Amino acid sequence: MNLKIIFRVLGFLLIIEGIAMFLALLVSLIYFEHDIKAFILAILLNLVLGISISFATRNAVKDIGKREGYIIVSLVWIVFSFFGAVPFVLSGSIPDFTNAFFETMSGFTTTGSSILDNIEALPHGILFWRSIIQWLGGMGIIVLSLAILPVFGIGGMQLFAAEVPGPAPDKISPRIRQTAKTLWVIYLGFTVAEILLLWIGGMTLFDAVCHSFTTMATGGFSTKQASIAHWQSPFIHYVIIIFMFLAGTNFTLSYLALKGKFKTVLKDEEFKYYSYFILGFTLLIFIGLLISTNLNIETAFRDSLFQVVSIITTTGYATADYLTWIPVLTILIFAMFFFGGSAGSTGGGIKIMRIVLLFKNSYYELRRLIHPKAIIPVKFNRHSVDSKIITNILAFFMLYFFIFGFSTVVFTLIEPNLETSMGAVATCLGNIGPGLGKVGPAENFMHIKPAGKWFLSFLMLLGRLELFTVLVLFSPAFWKK
Amino acid sequence: MNLKIIFRVLGFLLIIEGIAMFLALLVSLIYFEHDIKAFILAILLNLVLGISISFATRNAVKDIGKREGYIIVSLVWIVFSFFGAVPFVLSGSIPDFTNAFFETMSGFTTTGSSILDNIEALPHGILFWRSIIQWLGGMGIIVLSLAILPVFGIGGMQLFAAEVPGPAPDKISPRIRQTAKTLWVIYLGFTVAEILLLWIGGMTLFDAVCHSFTTMATGGFSTKQASIAHWQSPFIHYVIIIFMFLAGTNFTLSYLALKGKFKTVLKDEEFKYYSYFILGFTLLIFIGLLISTNLNIETAFRDSLFQVVSIITTTGYATADYLTWIPVLTILIFAMFFFGGSAGSTGGGIKIMRIVLLFKNSYYELRRLIHPKAIIPVKFNRHSVDSKIITNILAFFMLYFFIFGFSTVVFTLIEPNLETSMGAVATCLGNIGPGLGKVGPAENFMHIKPAGKWFLSFLMLLGRLELFTVLVLFSPAFWKK
Repeated sequence: MNLKIIFRVLGFLLIIEGIAMFLALLVSLIYFEHDIKAFILAILLNLVLGISISFATRNAVKDIGKREGYIIVSLVWIVFSFFGAVPFVLSGSIPDFTNAFFETMSGFTTTGSSILDNIEALPHGILFWRSIIQWLGGMGIIVLSLAILPVFGIGGMQLFAAEVPGPAPDKISPRIRQTAKTLWVIYLGFTVAEILLLWIGGMTLFDAVCHSFTTMATGGFSTKQASIAHWQSPFIHYVIIIFMFLAGTNFTLSYLALKGKFKTVLKDEEFKYYSYFILGFTLLIFIGLLISTNLNIETAFRDSLFQVVSIITTTGYATADYLTWIPVLTILIFAMFFFGGSAGSTGGGIKIMRIVLLFKNSYYELRRLIHPKAIIPVKFNRHSVDSKIITNILAFFMLYFFIFGFSTVVFTLIEPNLETSMGAVATCLGNIGPGLGKVGPAENFMHIKPAGKWFLSFLMLLGRLELFTVLVLFSPAFWKK
Repeated sequence: MNLKIIFRVLGFLLIIEGIAMFLALLVSLIYFEHDIKAFILAILLNLVLGISISFATRNAVKDIGKREGYIIVSLVWIVFSFFGAVPFVLSGSIPDFTNAFFETMSGFTTTGSSILDNIEALPHGILFWRSIIQWLGGMGIIVLSLAILPVFGIGGMQLFAAEVPGPAPDKISPRIRQTAKTLWVIYLGFTVAEILLLWIGGMTLFDAVCHSFTTMATGGFSTKQASIAHWQSPFIHYVIIIFMFLAGTNFTLSYLALKGKFKTVLKDEEFKYYSYFILGFTLLIFIGLLISTNLNIETAFRDSLFQVVSIITTTGYATADYLTWIPVLTILIFAMFFFGGSAGSTGGGIKIMRIVLLFKNSYYELRRLIHPKAIIPVKFNRHSVDSKIITNILAFFMLYFFIFGFSTVVFTLIEPNLETSMGAVATCLGNIGPGLGKVGPAENFMHIKPAGKWFLSFLMLLGRLELFTVLVLFSPAFWKK
């Protein structure tokens, strides 16, 4: 185990986090609020620590194997959240460290569950830092899911190997840098486009920037306690719907679309099903709302579409409280907790590609029963899918549901209510944001006991890193020479 | 498609059902109650129809292929329930046909969910018929799971091919008859043993027979509204615990044990995990009850063990109402809804073998990630498990959860309460009996709307036939030449 290089990478990342905090410091200087001192101290802490570690490990062998990779990937999120929580604590915005850590982990993992119950009272710098955290988390997840995890054989992105020139197996190659750069440019471009549109739509520039950051990350932190429901403008709602949709789409497809290869994009199976699922759920909820409420047609449609896109992409913004809908609609929303965005997007959850492959495998199994001698491989995007990938995805699915069930039981010890417990666990594991019961869209996580907050923080990390990345660290085989 | 042979088999089975009704008629004659006429009419209906069909199809080609097999297996349960419901309706015990069909399907599938809210008021013949239905259903499922389904490649029982001399693939061979006979002898033997013990323990002979029938079938119908809680005797509770445990054990293992091969039984992985799961859950609930209630140690232990064995084996008897326990214990019970008995037992649900193989595959996947070039097959009972079986089991698991989720959403339209809906769907799909919310152990299914009862009846069938057997009928490939 090359411990030195692990420390070196983490030190380097602390410096990056310190630099990111500079942006928040600038905002706090512009508004000249009481959070300036907190940012200066936090930046110093990050930089001093980061630079010291970098210096101490300057002669580390630059050899990152798979084991080091697994450890780094899991630690980055924890270290980032630990130090990212500092400005919240020092500024007094979230004085309790447990709460601050929960909020920061929820940010970096792009979950969006919040403990804040009076968001508007916070200084601008802090609000901005909260949005930057999600934007950085989103950026990180793009590299992770499109460049790093496939090397480990996690995430099923091997399927896209043909389209995306991926790195050589076993070692994280410099090619990642090229892929990452291209995708970040798209990420940045979309963010700028959304800022402009939201600004035109009537948001302040500050709110437009914050919300664009958290939309593109499918994060869902808002600068308002009422989330997007704060704005009445249909234009703002539709703009956010479009960008949530883009953020939940595989960024490689956006790249291809921008290069004019629309046919490839439209033929992509995951994209097709992603669109079908959204349309299908929207239609069902739209009909349900028309029958059960007095909303006019446009509002009912917009409320359905917004909530569906927000949940499927795991963003977690709200323009309506789905807990006030008739039960069957609430349960439809809860069913969507187990979908998630596309692979290679910033969305969390199980992911559309996995869902589609799982359905296909189950359907193919019926055909295999009828023709037991025929070899019937599952096809995806007109290619046969290696049975190893199917086994991996099925193992993922099984683990996901086991962790969901097990965690729900454990969480009930802390919060003795089945709905709240299921909702909190599913929303954190799926990196969504709002849950059910006492943690619905109109509520927050403040009242959850500290043990519950640490537990949920762990689930966010587990979900964000596609389970295996974290779980492998707990397997004895990993630590054997 | 050999339609004639399908009719012939069904006609033959109607005659068997008619003969079974004779037993109930005898009981009603002994007690000389008002249900005598109902049984005579129902028996005539079954015999006349069965004999006519047999006569009309006497020259059918005796060639049952896989397709005919699938259709027969699914239809048997429906036809049996349809005609089995007749005595309930004619005797006026359950005047409404929907209710009578639900009750009968719940019986034949050994589910045990009941619409009756005043069981003690029923005549003895009817109560006896209700128990016979479950006993027959249990008998049917033993043949099905140990002899017929493996031919279709369903149920994963191919794993036991070495121990059980199974039939040749593709045609249902006469060897089934031999296997079935041996296993039925054990089934009958256990039933007689339980009758004697319960009788000694203080039950009337009538109650002892009825409860032994429904224990060995892991059915759970009782002759008392309060279920087993009607009896205070610890002896009776422990006797029933032991026989529920036996009924949830693979009958092939009981056969081996009776032949003195204890080593093979104790080494069997499914049996080991079946015992571990029961012990583990019992311990957790025992501790929970000690902390949260004033029960004495023995009662707390007995209540935990009884409820755990009852739910894991999918019997569904109750000596305590788990809905009155602290929430975490109720949720532990609900988690057990997704376990089920051993493969080759009369228990329903997902089954221990599948659960164990799924866990193993997920754990092995972690090892595969660490050693991507090594070929690491899942092992069970010291044999490598064919990856085809793993894919089949994973497809089953995926389908099971999809059907559970989808049905919960649909059922919420009928019963707008998440807990009731989840509980009713899970308990019927898993052939357990009691659910959550308004269909808990102290409640019944009477108040569910008719549409809901038909829907749940279908789920019972789906669960009992291991999903695939029924679903394959809905696949276009099945009907293609």
